[in-house]
Amino acid sequence: MTSARPVVAALVRLGQTVAAAESLTAGLVTATLTEVPGSSAVVRGGLVVYATDLKAKLAGVDPALLAAHGAVHPEVAAQLAEGARERCGADWGLGLTGVAGPAPQDGVDPGTVHIGLAGPAGRDVRTHWFEGDRAAVRRAAVTAALDLLGEHLT
Amino acid sequence: MTSARPVVAALVRLGQTVAAAESLTAGLVTATLTEVPGSSAVVRGGLVVYATDLKAKLAGVDPALLAAHGAVHPEVAAQLAEGARERCGADWGLGLTGVAGPAPQDGVDPGTVHIGLAGPAGRDVRTHWFEGDRAAVRRAAVTAALDLLGEHLT
Repeated sequence: MTSARPVVAALVRLGQTVAAAESLTAGLVTATLTEVPGSSAVVRGGLVVYATDLKAKLAGVDPALLAAHGAVHPEVAAQLAEGARERCGADWGLGLTGVAGPAPQDGVDPGTVHIGLAGPAGRDVRTHWFEGDRAAVRRAAVTAALDLLGEHLT
Repeated sequence: MTSARPVVAALVRLGQTVAAAESLTAGLVTATLTEVPGSSAVVRGGLVVYATDLKAKLAGVDPALLAAHGAVHPEVAAQLAEGARERCGADWGLGLTGVAGPAPQDGVDPGTVHIGLAGPAGRDVRTHWFEGDRAAVRRAAVTAALDLLGEHLT
């Protein structure tokens, strides 16, 4: 909750809302944001798109992109962010895709995480390579996503 | 993860899949299921429907039901479960709605949680009154949801 509280406070101050489309974190970003009492004023909801076909069906990611590059790609993170923003009706959308491990996925090493943010002024995508086991990679991804949003709110 | 591991193992054994539509837990059910390595074979994804209008828009809950009874109602949990199952293309759908607290919502006391399960043979809905703070209520709701699914798998 350390990084969630200031993000929720900033959103409340600005009167803006957020949603997330999550693959490897599978709901942990929205769950973390909503640990903060009063977060219902600024957290709209989200899409958990664990299966690849749901990234297209629920979040509107281009199926040709998924077929060409697989699910772990910066452009997929950007489109997940835009899908979350649009389909959940939020000012800000976060999109997360990556490999939590323990095994590689589509030839991509565990720890590789792409995080997209879509907002009123456009998109921002960051790529991270996190160390540690499955739980550590997921926790680090949540923190990085909240930090990315926090950076744009201040 | 205690209750997630046997549920994931049972789904793998049966060759069946699960999805969830979550309000008060906001992604914690899918996040908990996917703590288990290999869960990608059986967890399709989910819908985080924190805002009331998203319960209708994303999960297909009847807007008239929401208008008449508010978001915290057993029938809402059942329709969330059915929406998760259908929209995520899973064999089993879980739906969770309730009041995490600290404040009451729509006149309903904190700790009140309705959990729906939709499956091949129909639906099952349970109502719980959990003790404790916001985090404890959410944790108890996740455990109860996984236990409900586990009960139907064995």
